[in-house]
Amino acid sequence: MKELKEKILAEGVAIGTEIVKVDHFLNHRLDVKFLENVGKEFKKRFADCEINKVLTVEASGIAVASLTAMYFDYVPVVFAKKAAPSTMTEGFYVAEAKSFTKGTVSLLRVSERFIEKGDKVLIIDDFLAHGQASLALANIVEQAGAEVVGVGAVIEKGFQGGSERLRAAGHRVESLAVIDKIEEGRIIFK
Amino acid sequence: MKELKEKILAEGVAIGTEIVKVDHFLNHRLDVKFLENVGKEFKKRFADCEINKVLTVEASGIAVASLTAMYFDYVPVVFAKKAAPSTMTEGFYVAEAKSFTKGTVSLLRVSERFIEKGDKVLIIDDFLAHGQASLALANIVEQAGAEVVGVGAVIEKGFQGGSERLRAAGHRVESLAVIDKIEEGRIIFK
Repeated sequence: MKELKEKILAEGVAIGTEIVKVDHFLNHRLDVKFLENVGKEFKKRFADCEINKVLTVEASGIAVASLTAMYFDYVPVVFAKKAAPSTMTEGFYVAEAKSFTKGTVSLLRVSERFIEKGDKVLIIDDFLAHGQASLALANIVEQAGAEVVGVGAVIEKGFQGGSERLRAAGHRVESLAVIDKIEEGRIIFK
Repeated sequence: MKELKEKILAEGVAIGTEIVKVDHFLNHRLDVKFLENVGKEFKKRFADCEINKVLTVEASGIAVASLTAMYFDYVPVVFAKKAAPSTMTEGFYVAEAKSFTKGTVSLLRVSERFIEKGDKVLIIDDFLAHGQASLALANIVEQAGAEVVGVGAVIEKGFQGGSERLRAAGHRVESLAVIDKIEEGRIIFK
């Protein structure tokens, strides 16, 4: 997605060799008009698929997932929670996701009421790095007896192996911009 | 907002006398089409105001804030973070918010780059309870030398005093549904 790559180059900041900071439009400040275009692009990429639910993780995935769902006939969005809130009284599916950036392990939780057997689920996230979050979401979908139609990532850090891991697990992956490497403060796309 | 009240009665679950669980459309599963109508309603309520930024808190505020910003000419959305992420290297405004539901105190953080002097900020949140989150966001706006135009809440728990506290601090408050009390599993609107 050309517009996305231009935006990453214009507004993104490379930190070291592994981190790209895009908090100007994607995960702290949100450019909603631009995220609509991201949603449209996911629709184009998954146009051949039947999808009845979009699944993401709080917090950065929520805006992208919501604006993507608009282009899939407003199917429901579900976001996995990283902590068990006090109002989450019933059963939930849980899966472990390690964050290499933060050096933490999160338990992702989704209420059993919100993913149903037979659902056709599109997983959407802002970043695809090592693939841990998407694999955990896919695990939750499978626990529910539902089907992962595909995984859509806004930005993939191609050098961290996430898409290979997801494809090896049998998932279709569409990343709108794939970063090949980060070198001396420069972001180089595949 | 009639449609909202009907939705709360149809899909909300009262827990004890203080908690209303609306995770079916607002804070775990998201009904994006409905949240568009919420955004439209906020535009109607604040139609007389000049607004150039929408501010909320992760995670539940993000979808509502994004869909509200669409109706304010796609002004940028900024969401305050509850934890300092590893990619947040620069200075940030910080304010303390106590959550009575969770029994915790969060530090809300917003990068200094994203609220500017002179900004006219609409604060949006899913719930207005004791008002702690909105007061913390207003504090951040003021630290930045910007102006709080108003506070918009989807659901106000009228019996917890949040809107009184905000109005006492000089803020305009618009809540789309005000719950007067929760009694024997019944939700009663003002």
